[in-house]
Amino acid sequence: MFRSHNCGELTAVNINTEVTLSGWVQKSRDKGFIVWVDLRDRYGITQLVFDEERSSKTLIEQAQNLGREFVIQVKGTVIERASKNPNIPTGDIEILVSKLTVLNASLLPPFTIEDKTDGGEDIRMKYRYLDIRRNPVKDSLIFRSKVSQEVRNYLSNEGFIEVETPYLIKSTPEGARDFVVPSRMNEGQFYALPQSPQTFKQLLMVGGMDKYFQIVKCFRDEDLRADRQPEFTQIDCEMAFVEQEDILNVFEGLTRHLLKEVNGVDIKKFPRLLFDDAMRLYGNDKPDIRFGMEFGELNAVAQHKDFGVFNNAELVVGIAVPGGNSYTRKEIDKLVSWVKRPQVGALGMVYSRCNDDGSYKSSVDKFYDQDDLAKWAEVTGAKPGDLICVLSGDKNKVRAQLSALRMELAERLGLRDPKVFAPLWVIDFPLLELDEETGHYHAMHHPFTSPKPGQLELLDTNPGEVKANAYDLVLNGNEIGGGSIRIHDKETQAIMFKHLGFTEEEAKAQFGFLMDAFQYGAPPHGGLAFGLDRLVAILGGQETIRDFIAFPKNNSGRDVMIDAPAPIDDEQLTELSLKLNLKS
Amino acid sequence: MFRSHNCGELTAVNINTEVTLSGWVQKSRDKGFIVWVDLRDRYGITQLVFDEERSSKTLIEQAQNLGREFVIQVKGTVIERASKNPNIPTGDIEILVSKLTVLNASLLPPFTIEDKTDGGEDIRMKYRYLDIRRNPVKDSLIFRSKVSQEVRNYLSNEGFIEVETPYLIKSTPEGARDFVVPSRMNEGQFYALPQSPQTFKQLLMVGGMDKYFQIVKCFRDEDLRADRQPEFTQIDCEMAFVEQEDILNVFEGLTRHLLKEVNGVDIKKFPRLLFDDAMRLYGNDKPDIRFGMEFGELNAVAQHKDFGVFNNAELVVGIAVPGGNSYTRKEIDKLVSWVKRPQVGALGMVYSRCNDDGSYKSSVDKFYDQDDLAKWAEVTGAKPGDLICVLSGDKNKVRAQLSALRMELAERLGLRDPKVFAPLWVIDFPLLELDEETGHYHAMHHPFTSPKPGQLELLDTNPGEVKANAYDLVLNGNEIGGGSIRIHDKETQAIMFKHLGFTEEEAKAQFGFLMDAFQYGAPPHGGLAFGLDRLVAILGGQETIRDFIAFPKNNSGRDVMIDAPAPIDDEQLTELSLKLNLKS
Repeated sequence: MFRSHNCGELTAVNINTEVTLSGWVQKSRDKGFIVWVDLRDRYGITQLVFDEERSSKTLIEQAQNLGREFVIQVKGTVIERASKNPNIPTGDIEILVSKLTVLNASLLPPFTIEDKTDGGEDIRMKYRYLDIRRNPVKDSLIFRSKVSQEVRNYLSNEGFIEVETPYLIKSTPEGARDFVVPSRMNEGQFYALPQSPQTFKQLLMVGGMDKYFQIVKCFRDEDLRADRQPEFTQIDCEMAFVEQEDILNVFEGLTRHLLKEVNGVDIKKFPRLLFDDAMRLYGNDKPDIRFGMEFGELNAVAQHKDFGVFNNAELVVGIAVPGGNSYTRKEIDKLVSWVKRPQVGALGMVYSRCNDDGSYKSSVDKFYDQDDLAKWAEVTGAKPGDLICVLSGDKNKVRAQLSALRMELAERLGLRDPKVFAPLWVIDFPLLELDEETGHYHAMHHPFTSPKPGQLELLDTNPGEVKANAYDLVLNGNEIGGGSIRIHDKETQAIMFKHLGFTEEEAKAQFGFLMDAFQYGAPPHGGLAFGLDRLVAILGGQETIRDFIAFPKNNSGRDVMIDAPAPIDDEQLTELSLKLNLKS
Repeated sequence: MFRSHNCGELTAVNINTEVTLSGWVQKSRDKGFIVWVDLRDRYGITQLVFDEERSSKTLIEQAQNLGREFVIQVKGTVIERASKNPNIPTGDIEILVSKLTVLNASLLPPFTIEDKTDGGEDIRMKYRYLDIRRNPVKDSLIFRSKVSQEVRNYLSNEGFIEVETPYLIKSTPEGARDFVVPSRMNEGQFYALPQSPQTFKQLLMVGGMDKYFQIVKCFRDEDLRADRQPEFTQIDCEMAFVEQEDILNVFEGLTRHLLKEVNGVDIKKFPRLLFDDAMRLYGNDKPDIRFGMEFGELNAVAQHKDFGVFNNAELVVGIAVPGGNSYTRKEIDKLVSWVKRPQVGALGMVYSRCNDDGSYKSSVDKFYDQDDLAKWAEVTGAKPGDLICVLSGDKNKVRAQLSALRMELAERLGLRDPKVFAPLWVIDFPLLELDEETGHYHAMHHPFTSPKPGQLELLDTNPGEVKANAYDLVLNGNEIGGGSIRIHDKETQAIMFKHLGFTEEEAKAQFGFLMDAFQYGAPPHGGLAFGLDRLVAILGGQETIRDFIAFPKNNSGRDVMIDAPAPIDDEQLTELSLKLNLKS
């Protein structure tokens, strides 16, 4: 038996108990005549004491020779601490050690195992097993486990069945790039790793499984952006005999349950916003509604004067920055530079100060009088003391630019409090999205999403206008879930594939099994998937997902700890009927 | 709203309620003036009725036109059934339908959707989504979900944290063949899919995670035997600061919990059997102890006469077959043929009938007298009416042969009742196993398993004798779990790698990260993994795992439903810096 208790549970009630503890040496303080050692495990820290009066010389020497991160076992007596530490649960006691065994020594760790470490990202990733000893990472992983378990409990109680779908499936050129897996037994053929269990969960609905969920790894071989991982985890769900309303209710319930159980936050009914309104009011299909600063469209009150920049713009749109009139000229100039950065891409920014006396001072006073500016304030909801920021240009671009500005300003104003949670549904997404480069439409959600009733005909005449039975769950400016009511008949699915540029042969080769399945009594069905990594990070009050993943990969898709990927033997390649074909 | 109730919940208390149901047409009976339709969903079957007196002509015609597996929605009133069916929960009522909507038609399914189907294995796999509609498959998947959820609940309550480990890891030539995944971003390099999260869970222990579990997919590219899948699911567990005893207790607790919650069976303390004793008593390291028929070693009482076959054998060993004296000569001859089949491989079988009067009649009466045979009966525990079957030869071979015979006879005698559960631990496995082909030793469990204390030295002199801190959990003749106390220091691990034939460079290249980790304060740790597919099948009282996997692959590793694996585009290959190198 390595321990009678863990390092987080002994308190004053245990005084005089004989205990055995095991753990890591967090740190020690050596005063010569007395040595204190902080012993750490997953559960907490317990102070050990060795002193001249009560400990043997050998034992004190043993304690003095302990290094950071040594793994030790001690036997001793719980005693009251002279100077108590009210900040930790074990702060009232310490262990007077009678026996010390070093279970394993440790080299000096390459960074300190403390909440604020001196280790940079790269070194912490290489020694991830040491990084996990730090509370911020350890607690994030424990938090993730708790969230997953709460998801499972909730959905199981709602009658959902967790079904494991296969990982070795078939590659489809549609969508993102697949990771593929050469088959040794089927020469020249490949499996693909799933980007999501989409078709399988639909087949489970055809199979009568009724309510399905799975917490499942998914894979995308995409060029990685910051905070993207080649493998990621989804809470994947599907229901049969449902309409959009049923799905929204069930998964709003799940999200409410998580916020309550995990964060202790009670949220009533989630607001619902049409996609078109989200774009109009926030320039963004995943608006952060923890704060206002809604867009005011100014075309009607800004295109009647001689200001060509606005007059030639498709959209003139502004936001009121609360208290922004306090910004100095220099600060405003910096804001203008900020929106002109290539990442944002605005050509310039017009502003109007809202003075406390009700007057206005704008950067375009040459063109607009006080009455004009008062209307801008009215439309953007600006109050005295605010600053109105106005961008103009192509509608889609200018909305994206103003959205970026809105988020940046909210961040600076401290309006994005990670302890505040503001979920909402964005509904009625477009079915198709125009790829500006190719001029082709592709599925905004995926090719299995059903159009709104009666809109199928619009596909021929006005494809960009067709709305889908598709919805996203947004939390604090992040899409945490998305889904749709699916197509469940072969004819509609064939029309969709045609409009997405599949030939009949391609559709049959890739999704023939699904179209076949639709002919054997497919029920109406729909579902949704949550991105677990992001969901957990947001619930945990963090911006980045990396600390919520035990062994993440870097931006080149490498695991720097185990040094993967790596070359394989020629023999292995030959067995797989493959040869390298290096470009360099 | 597609339904107010499901098809399994309406009973007499709902009579006169207006309801809406949706589901599949299981079957219909058309008497002309009255039509009954069985409507099925995941939850059950509800009878619908349409008749001349109470239903419109159009409605009756609609009902008459329904085919099997049509998906329909009906509105109607719950009424009392004239002839009740006590076999189903809804058997007291039926629905007098007022409105019928066909939600989706169905082609005639290629096999009947019934408990006993007319479909063969191949067609059922191709149309797996239809097979899943059948109760035996559907119930197996629901059962699996329940078992998984119980595992998670139990381990979470015990303080285990579920941590997701990566799927894209590094290939290691040790052990079974890996599936590999070419990396596009790291030219000429490959990830491997994990055969188990072994090294990661050990690193989590080094990381202080203390108690880890995960229900996780694992992958092995092996030539498939019947009932093996290239992807399979493990309940993977690891604990720090534990000895073998701690692990056995925790996972005995888990298994007991499952047997109780899932099967309603109470099992006290599991027996523990030394590996050596398991081999001696059952010829098998996963003995089925639902019945006796333990081996009796007969060397001392069978090698003193002039019977060369026995005298030249390393081992003479027998079992008593209960009631076996009733076998005819012909039946016994068949048994002899059975043990001589190449799959078993015995050269012959000696037997001795135990007559009711206490006398014996053996196939070797020429050599052995009644006193000899009485001793055989004593050693094998044979009683009057039994049959003693004796095999002889090389110890390891003859044990395996007699074990096969024991299992076959028990099967015939009905002693392998799937509703009876007899778990046990087999402990003290050998550390190494001799590969008869190569003459090399390899790790019996895996290279991270620790030898028993003080046995490290034996590695040089007598490697086959070294025992490991390794244990298997056996249930009804199947290994359902196995694990070990791990090596946790770099030196011992290096010695192990050396004995397994790794050069220092190979060990460093493949497992350097683990050896490094052991230098930074690795705690003593150990763990175990259950094979979930098999565990669920056995708890479910089945022999084969296939119905407990939603979308299994066939013996060539193919998913015949989606037709995977499949060729991929040349473009995709080029992107991955690969070329095909076909042998044929």
